[in-house]
This record gives sequence, structure tokens and C-alpha cells, in this order.
Amino acid sequence: MKFIDLRSDTVTHPTDEMRQAMANAEVGDDVYQDDPTTKELEKYAAEITGKEAALFVPSGTFGNQLALFTHCERGNEVIIGKDSHIIVHEVGAASVIAGVQMRTLNTKKGEMNIEEIEETIRKEEDIHFPKTGLIALENAYSNGKALSLNYMKNVRKISKKYNIPIHLDGARLFNAATALNVDVKEIADEVDSIQFCLSKGLCSPIGSLLVGRNSFIEKARKKRKLMGGGLRQTGILAAAGLISLKKMTKRLNEDHIRAKKLAKEISKIPGISIDIGDVDINLVFFKIDKNKYKIDDMVDFFRKRNIIINPEENGYMRFVTHYWIKNEDIEHVIETTKRYFNYMEI
Amino acid sequence: MKFIDLRSDTVTHPTDEMRQAMANAEVGDDVYQDDPTTKELEKYAAEITGKEAALFVPSGTFGNQLALFTHCERGNEVIIGKDSHIIVHEVGAASVIAGVQMRTLNTKKGEMNIEEIEETIRKEEDIHFPKTGLIALENAYSNGKALSLNYMKNVRKISKKYNIPIHLDGARLFNAATALNVDVKEIADEVDSIQFCLSKGLCSPIGSLLVGRNSFIEKARKKRKLMGGGLRQTGILAAAGLISLKKMTKRLNEDHIRAKKLAKEISKIPGISIDIGDVDINLVFFKIDKNKYKIDDMVDFFRKRNIIINPEENGYMRFVTHYWIKNEDIEHVIETTKRYFNYMEI
Amino acid sequence: MKFIDLRSDTVTHPTDEMRQAMANAEVGDDVYQDDPTTKELEKYAAEITGKEAALFVPSGTFGNQLALFTHCERGNEVIIGKDSHIIVHEVGAASVIAGVQMRTLNTKKGEMNIEEIEETIRKEEDIHFPKTGLIALENAYSNGKALSLNYMKNVRKISKKYNIPIHLDGARLFNAATALNVDVKEIADEVDSIQFCLSKGLCSPIGSLLVGRNSFIEKARKKRKLMGGGLRQTGILAAAGLISLKKMTKRLNEDHIRAKKLAKEISKIPGISIDIGDVDINLVFFKIDKNKYKIDDMVDFFRKRNIIINPEENGYMRFVTHYWIKNEDIEHVIETTKRYFNYMEI
Amino acid sequence: MKFIDLRSDTVTHPTDEMRQAMANAEVGDDVYQDDPTTKELEKYAAEITGKEAALFVPSGTFGNQLALFTHCERGNEVIIGKDSHIIVHEVGAASVIAGVQMRTLNTKKGEMNIEEIEETIRKEEDIHFPKTGLIALENAYSNGKALSLNYMKNVRKISKKYNIPIHLDGARLFNAATALNVDVKEIADEVDSIQFCLSKGLCSPIGSLLVGRNSFIEKARKKRKLMGGGLRQTGILAAAGLISLKKMTKRLNEDHIRAKKLAKEISKIPGISIDIGDVDINLVFFKIDKNKYKIDDMVDFFRKRNIIINPEENGYMRFVTHYWIKNEDIEHVIETTKRYFNYMEI
Repeated sequence: MKFIDLRSDTVTHPTDEMRQAMANAEVGDDVYQDDPTTKELEKYAAEITGKEAALFVPSGTFGNQLALFTHCERGNEVIIGKDSHIIVHEVGAASVIAGVQMRTLNTKKGEMNIEEIEETIRKEEDIHFPKTGLIALENAYSNGKALSLNYMKNVRKISKKYNIPIHLDGARLFNAATALNVDVKEIADEVDSIQFCLSKGLCSPIGSLLVGRNSFIEKARKKRKLMGGGLRQTGILAAAGLISLKKMTKRLNEDHIRAKKLAKEISKIPGISIDIGDVDINLVFFKIDKNKYKIDDMVDFFRKRNIIINPEENGYMRFVTHYWIKNEDIEHVIETTKRYFNYMEI
Repeated sequence: MKFIDLRSDTVTHPTDEMRQAMANAEVGDDVYQDDPTTKELEKYAAEITGKEAALFVPSGTFGNQLALFTHCERGNEVIIGKDSHIIVHEVGAASVIAGVQMRTLNTKKGEMNIEEIEETIRKEEDIHFPKTGLIALENAYSNGKALSLNYMKNVRKISKKYNIPIHLDGARLFNAATALNVDVKEIADEVDSIQFCLSKGLCSPIGSLLVGRNSFIEKARKKRKLMGGGLRQTGILAAAGLISLKKMTKRLNEDHIRAKKLAKEISKIPGISIDIGDVDINLVFFKIDKNKYKIDDMVDFFRKRNIIINPEENGYMRFVTHYWIKNEDIEHVIETTKRYFNYMEI
Repeated sequence: MKFIDLRSDTVTHPTDEMRQAMANAEVGDDVYQDDPTTKELEKYAAEITGKEAALFVPSGTFGNQLALFTHCERGNEVIIGKDSHIIVHEVGAASVIAGVQMRTLNTKKGEMNIEEIEETIRKEEDIHFPKTGLIALENAYSNGKALSLNYMKNVRKISKKYNIPIHLDGARLFNAATALNVDVKEIADEVDSIQFCLSKGLCSPIGSLLVGRNSFIEKARKKRKLMGGGLRQTGILAAAGLISLKKMTKRLNEDHIRAKKLAKEISKIPGISIDIGDVDINLVFFKIDKNKYKIDDMVDFFRKRNIIINPEENGYMRFVTHYWIKNEDIEHVIETTKRYFNYMEI
Repeated sequence: MKFIDLRSDTVTHPTDEMRQAMANAEVGDDVYQDDPTTKELEKYAAEITGKEAALFVPSGTFGNQLALFTHCERGNEVIIGKDSHIIVHEVGAASVIAGVQMRTLNTKKGEMNIEEIEETIRKEEDIHFPKTGLIALENAYSNGKALSLNYMKNVRKISKKYNIPIHLDGARLFNAATALNVDVKEIADEVDSIQFCLSKGLCSPIGSLLVGRNSFIEKARKKRKLMGGGLRQTGILAAAGLISLKKMTKRLNEDHIRAKKLAKEISKIPGISIDIGDVDINLVFFKIDKNKYKIDDMVDFFRKRNIIINPEENGYMRFVTHYWIKNEDIEHVIETTKRYFNYMEI
């Protein structure tokens, strides 16, 4: 039986076309840089982002942490939003692998305050001060907001003024570009490196790409090996990845439309609190009135109706649309949500 | 020639009584726990703070970093004020030695928001989440504010609710107790461990103490060795430290009165901006009108008149009072400041 | 055109059966533990090694480093052979990720001296001593030797006497079992955890398994996430991995026979120095007379004849047999080697 | 009552002259580089070792670990003797602070094999290889041997050939120079940096020096701050340190003569096994027949006769001579040892 899985877009399994491509992929040993399909994917990823080079990595967390590890020296500081994925959802890895000190700034709809970024940067050399090694952005942000190009440009100005690189966690980079209606290169132009995932809304089973300058990627390649990410016949995964980049990036607007539809409909339900203006991409965050409704009940109620949802995190419920969620699924989810909240009120 | 050194209370050199005590100190090898004067100091430090045990460490930074290293496992998160000494002035050491992820919260007059502390704590076990290992406070705060007992108690409630220890950077613990007019034990009661300095306003040449539970101090003793802080005949320094704790802690109010006097007088000067209500201890922070006055000029002007001051840091100038700054020195500083700001206006 | 690739067994690309299995694999999101094929693979891996649980990891280096990170606390010591893969070929990762101190012992045909292991273990608690956290073995060893069960049992005795776990780098575990003619369980019984590779002689494109006790694997699962190894639809790779374990493990003797044949034949060539008694598995190490022959020439000569070989490392040349090296390939390699060494002598 | 303390030369307390010098020391805040006595000590330390600069550090372990941290990048390899102080007695700190991978080589009378050092060095850049960051020597060695200048020069050749720096743990550097009858500069010439202790045979209560090139010391100064070693009025300790360097270094031969006398006399005792040819400095190592004698009994027996000794470590007992052990003390120790071994035989 098929479930409607709204937990995340990471649950997307590969399409038949991807499966076929994986079965037929031309492969080699990528540690020896002998895998032609991986090379093709990396070349293509660099091209579409306008960067010099790209590197296949096993996951988004891997790509982000590798970027920190490559940009920074140990003991450097990283300026980053306090509710970013790197801070909240990567198990504190930055303190283990890169060994850097996080300066977690408040955010407003995913944006750190530009002046606060500038204040936080270490401007002078002083025996008491670590060096600011990196500014880390995330676009689309974990909260479902696409950061505007204008905001990115403002951070870039600071970055250039103090000669500090920017890494972009672009796990949902193509969702952001779609929401902003810009070429992904325009976002990429404002940062030094990007990690983006093939395995979220783009349906690949496994993998992310890290893009940046040649010298950066060369250094990252060796550190990827240190972190245990030197894989062998990655062409299998790269074959799916190419379809993700060439086809799947074009259809993300469908997911966004469905997310907005869903948000709009459930916003009408008493007991649900949601700002539909914040739904930029495929992520629908909302709060429920916990005096009246219990999360566990809700999860069970949905599961019995073939809908899988996560319990709340940090006070928010999250519905995620993706390739395998179709219009009729959205209808079923809306109806189920309405029934649940009605049912409970009785 | 004698200078009036307002840069910090770390510049305090030992008194004659301390010098005599150091010359006559009974000593042994403290790595073998054979130094009687160090033992006496540690015992006394534990007693006056109401903690089970104490450990002599070479510096405040050493004591704070040792506390993080001892409380936390690598990869844990530490909740801490963004402008605390540990974040701003300890060279990013927490990312190197303890290997922990900092969650730097905004502060208001040295206080993190209690609700934000609670929000930041990791409440559930989740494969994406590091564990919150510690809440770090600082009292008196680097900005010269003494945090109220009431605030400390509110943080303590959160700490107990989630079973997360609190470390207090009490570099100027006795200044805080003096400003709050409470026994130091009352502050100490609200935290699990404290580092306090003998070498700031208390005039000892070198050394800090880390206090806490027996099990904590025992673990810290070994980690102190790892960090290179297992010293030998520390009785020399402990002899001065005992005078710091027994005598110098009693006279800090003098420094506070002088600081307030200084703050009040210079607050009258156009071109200087200061909130005299924020001067709780011996630290006077103020801003100058940089359109009219140049920091370098000011430093030179003062130096020529035998007053040593630091250039601004993060936009603030700082005058620090201490044992070696007497009433006539304060008069000279006030007069010099007035002259400088007059002189420049002409 | 097809090359005979003797550089490593990591160059093995998947079989058609594997490609089909990957195309048809049932998958889910493995971070949510929803991937049925990965679960099946992990269950099977645990069963055949007689361990409680298993965890899929992206690579052999990843699995080894994860094992160090999971067994040890930071600052612990690890006793390990000085020419083991973990020391020589994993980019010093143990000092970055696990943060442990390596005690690299000499080896003789892959075996550390048992008495030296015992001497190296920290027996008492002392303020100067780190704790011995792990003994790390490798079987088959990087030099092509299979360590005898008897040797494993002797190390196990020491391990039990001092209550120190053993991790086995079993990148070529099934080659070792084949060479020793024992069930893989018999090797596994003597250690606490094992990493073994699916992507070397077993032909899978990507992946390794870490096996051990339930509590160990549970802890490792979270640390795998921290290291960026929490992947999504790993069922794709697990489908190939199941064929590796069920079929490919049974045919390794073929590779060993070919390696021995190759070793025996080239041992007759003047200018080549080899101990054919050391060829236990599919790795043929030998030295060449560098006064007469140049490595670069040799690599070129072979390449022109469709044979890919690595330049020497640490003074040794290495020919590796595997699934894609057939009898006729071996004949061609022998003939080419003979021609090269004759040709040069003229 | 006075004890004869043979446990270590770290137990030496300061002389009256040192105490007087400490009481009268001119001091300043050394973090601001304002302490004149510390500057004088550092200048003198650099001069006598022929190095460009020196830095005062709290302990020998601190100085060694700071050297590793300053010479190496994290993840580098360090080639070092397996029974060196850094490996055996520094709590595994190198894996925590510097984050480097130790390659522990066997030693023979304190010397690593020159060819093995060369073999261990990473000669090529390879994606699998960490970089060799440092060779670490120790002279005099922990086992009481002074390494010959000739040996040092041979290691230096390798170091220069591969452009890898050498750090010398010279905790007992002046003992080594005395034993070899060479100027300390001659030893220092063969290495890039040295740590030597003021607080062992040289009687200072606390402190070591790290010497090396200007650029190295400048970098180390900041990392010293990170490690918590930025102290304030260190002139107190530097005043004693100057006496250590100017006077105490000249009298070490007395300690060596007494150690040799002691070694020679106890070598005659059945039940004691000692190679008197290995006693180069003030350390006398020997084994006792543990079938007949119990360590604990022996420690008690000596304690009752006012002699403090350590229990064995790694199978060896150790008697250490130093400033506070005079000829009559040596006679008493010899007599007591003879009595103990006779007494037990009855």
C-alpha cells in the first residue's frame, strides 16, 4: 500500500528513469578519479552554478561540514543563523570535524541582521581573538523562506569588505531559485561555495554536490577522503544525479504550488496557526493549539489514513511536498486535517 | 616613574605583603599533591564559595576552558552570552580544547533572555541533535554589570528542569558579590562550578581557582595535567592567593566607588557617552565621538600625562580601577580627560 | 577497449546482476530507518559475522574511523600496527575525528608482537596516563597476509585480561576467511567490532558494513550522522551489497589462486624480488631492482599493453587480482612482465 | 623533619636566593608584554640556546604540547619515540590539543633508528597520506640517556632532506649538555625548537621555556593564550628562572656524580638489576626481583627511614638525584637499599 509521506522531501525514492540510468551507468573508481559519470555530474554541477569545480559527497551534512573544514582553520569562528540546519540538525559536527567556534546570530525569516554580521566579524588581529573564518548562509532556509537576492548581495558586500568567504547551505538551492524566479547562478554568484542536495526534492537516492573554486575543491577532495567520503563507483549515483539536475530542478514549482495550496486550506482551520506568506517553497510549517490537540493523537490519526507526518519539532509541525505527492494526495491531506481538527472539537 | 595604568585590573602587581608571603611560602610538588600552601588555598577557596573542592589553575582562560572540557563531552552544545569573555576573548579555545558547539545568545546588560535559554536547550534525544552540555554565565559580566541573584536563580531553575550544569566565569566574582552586597556563597549556590581570578583586582601575580563538586574537581585535575597545567611548587603563588582571598576581596568596594566617581565626572564631558547606571564594579565603559576625537590621539595624550589606556574595542573605551589606583590618581584621570576633550574642541 | 586493471580490487565495477538488483531495489529513507533493503543487508551482515547488529557506511575508511570514534573517548590511546591501513592510508583521520593517540607498533607479516601489545596497554590509572581505549587489528593485513586464528585468539586474551575492546579492519575479511579456510564467524568471534568492505573484491560499487554489539551500533548510528554518513535511499546500494555477501564471498578463492599463480611466475624473473609464501589472498607485493628498472617506464610499458598498474608505494609494487581479472588476463600479465624485464636487460 | 625525596627532580623547591629574587622581582603584565623580568629571562634563554626567541610557559607538558600545536597542522603526523615523555606521560594531549597522529617508533637507549625515521616520513603527496609535520626528539631521554651529538646530527640530516622540523623535548636539556660535555647551543643547533624546564633539576618552582625562530615563537605566543597560558606578573617566576639558568645549570654534574655513585653501589646488591653504563644524568633506573621483593614493602621500608620513592612504572624503579640530595643522603640511601635487600633475604 502506498503512503503519503509528508515528513520530508528526503523520503523521495528514485524515479524509474533514474533506476534505469543507475543500472546502465558507466562507472570507474572515483578515488582514482576514473568514474566518467561522476565527472560528468561534477562538470555539469559546476556549470549550472557558474563555479569552477564540483565534488560529489555522500550527503548534505557531509557537504556542509566538509565546506567548514575546508574553508576554516581549526579555532576559527563561523557566523551563522541560530536556527540553520548546520547548527540545529548536524549533531554539533562543526565542533568535532572542522573544530570551529560558532557565533550563532538571531534570524528574522531566515535572515541574520546585516549590521550584526558586521559587528560580529573580528576586524583586528588581537592576542585574544580567533579569526573569523566564514559566514554561513542557508537558502532556502530551514524555515521554508527563500532569502532574496538583495539580501544575499548585502551579505556579500560585508564578506568582500573583510575578505571572509561565504558558504551557502543550498540543500534546497533549486527550490530557492525557483521561488525567487532567478537562475541558480545568480544566487551562486554571491557566495564562495555551495552544498546542494540531489536527494531531497530532486529524487536521487543519495548524494550532494559541493561547488566552488578549483583550489577549494582540490583541498576538499583530500579532506573528503579523510572524512571517509572517498567512494568508488559513484557513477551509479551520479547517473541519477544527472537526471535530478537536468529534469527535476525544472519541476519544483509544482511542489511549491501544492505546498501553498495546502497551507492556504489548512490556515482556515481553527486550532492551526500558520503564516501563509512564509511558504516560499515546499515546506509548510504551522503550529497547533496544544491545549486542545495532542501531537501523538494527530500523528496516529493521519497514519491510519495513510499519511505519514512527523511529530512537532521546536514547536512546529511540518508538511513537506515533493515529487511523489500529487494533487489528489494534497486533497486527501487537506480533508484529513480538517477531519482531525473537527473530530477533536466534538 | 609611576604610571596610572587603567588598561585592566590584570596589571595589578603584588603587594609587599604578598611578596613576603611568596618568599616564605611552604611548598611541595603539587602534581604529587604535596604542596601544603596550595592545599590550604584550595581548601579556603572551596569553603568561602560553599563548594566541595577547588583546583588552582594558571589563568582565568585556563580555568574556564578546563571547566568546559570537564563538564562537556566533545560535540556537546554550550549556551552562552555572545559578548562573554569565553566567546570574545579566549581565542576560540572552546572549539579546540573542549570541542563543543557554542550557541551564542544575545544579552541585555549581560543577561541572556531566560526563555531563549530554555528554547535553545535540546529537550529530546534525536539523531540530528547534539546534547546541551552546559549553560555558561559570567558574573560580573565583561561589560561591568553584576547579574542579580534573582537572575541567577531564574537560570538555575531552567538548569535544574533540564538537568544541565551551569559554569560561572567569575573572573570578577568578588566584585560581583561586593556590588550585589551578598556573600559570594549566595552566587555560588546557583551554579555548579566557578572560575575566579586571583590576578585581577585581587593583586596576585598569577592564578585562578576552579571550584565545584569533588567528582568534578577530580576529573578536572587530570584534564588540567593534559592541558599542561600540572605545575610544581605552586605554593609560591598560593601564598599570594591566600592574601588575595582573605584581604583583597574585602576592599573591592573602594575600586567600585572610584570607578563610579570617575564615570560620573566624565559623563559630564561633551563628546563622551556613558550610562553611569551600568557601572556596577570597577569597569567604566564609554564611547567617544569619533567624528571629533581620534583614539590614537587620545591614547598618546594620556600617555604623555602618565596615564596608560587601551584603544577602544568593539566601539568602547574602558577605564579600569584597581588596588594601585588611588583617589589622587582618579583626580588626575578626570582632569586629563577634561583637558583632552576641551583641548580638542578648540 | 577493456583494460586489465591491477591497481586494486576497489576498481571492480558491479556485475549485471547487481545492476539489475539496484534498479529494482525496494527503498526508503534510511535516516528514518525506513529502508527495507538496507535493513535486510544489515541483518544479514550481523548474522554471517555472528554479531548483534550491523550498520551500512559509505566506505571502509568511514567504517574504521567511525569505529574508533565510537569505541574511544577523545584522548584515549589506540594500539595498532604501524603499517596498517588506518595508519598509512586514512589521511590521519583518527587524530581529527576520534581524536585519539595512536601507539603504532612494529609488525611482522602483519602481526604485532603480543608481549609488546601487553606492555603498551596502560594498566594503572595515573594522572600522566591516557586510557588505552582500543586495540585495532587488520585481517587480511594490507600486506596481503591473513592473520591466523591462533594469533587472533592470543590478542583476544590480552584484550579480555585488560578489558579493552578490539576493532578489526576487515576490509578484506572474506579474503582472510577464505585464505584461512574458516567461517568468517570464527574470526569475528575474537573481536568486538569489524568493518568490512562491499566494494573491494566483492564488486559492489559503494559501501561497507560495521558490525558489533547492539549498544555499539546504536551509538555508531548517531555518530555516523555527525560524520555525514546518514544517507537516504541506501537500498540501491544495499541491493548490490546483498549479492556481494551472498555470492561474491564464495568465489574469492579464484582470485587467490590467480594471485598465487601470478606471484609464482613472476618470482622466476630476475630483477623481481618476491616471497610467494606471503601471498595469502589477492594481493601480490614485490620489489623490483631499481638500479636497472624505472617504475615510470614499467607503468608506461604495461599501459601500452592494456594493463594498468600503480607506481610503487613504500618500495613495493602491487598487482591485485579480482572478479574482473580472468585466467587469460593473468597469462597476459605474466607475459608482459616477462617481456618488460627481458626487454630492459638487453 | 626532612625527607630524602628521590621520586623526581620536580620535587626540588626553590633556594633562598630564588625566594629573595622572587620577592624583589620587577614585574608587569606579561600578556601586554610588559613584564621586564620575563623579557630578560626569555632573552637570556634565547641567547644561551642560540635561538632567535623564547617564550615562558607554565610547564614542560605545556611547552611540548604548544610546540606540537604550533609546528603542525591538525591531522599531521609526528614521528616520535614510543617511550618518550610526550607519548607516555602527557595524558595523550597531542591528540586533543594539536590533533596530530603519532607514529611511535621503537627506541634503543632513547634513539629511534635513523632509517626507520626516514621510512616513516611521507615522501609524496597522495590523497591517502597525511603530511609528516614534525620529528620529536627528547634529550636527555626519559630513560636517563643523553643522546649523542652525532645521533642528533644524523636525525638533522633527515630533517633537512625532507624539510621537516624537529622539536626537542629538553626537559633535562642542561643535564644532557652536561653529560655530553658540550655547550647547550651545540644540541640546540640540531633542532628547530626546544622546550626545557626550569622546575626540574634547576630548582625553580614553576615554569619552562620554549625557544625557536621568531616567527615560531610569535605564533606560539597566541596559541599559548588559547591554551590558557597567558599569565600576568610572571616576573615573579622569571626571577627564579634566571637563577636556574645562570647558576643551577652549572652544578648539574654533582647530581650526575651522585647518581652514578648510587647506581654503582646498588648494582652490587643481589635482587637489583641495573646497567650502570646507562646512567648518564641524574636518573637511576633499575629492576628488582619481584619474586622475592614486593614494591609496596620496599616503598614503606624506605619511607620509615625518611626516604620517599615512587613505586615502579613499566617495570622499573627510579631513584632521582637533585640539588637537595647531598652526599650524606646518598650514603643513607645506599645503606637503606642494602639493608632492605638483606633484610628481605633473611
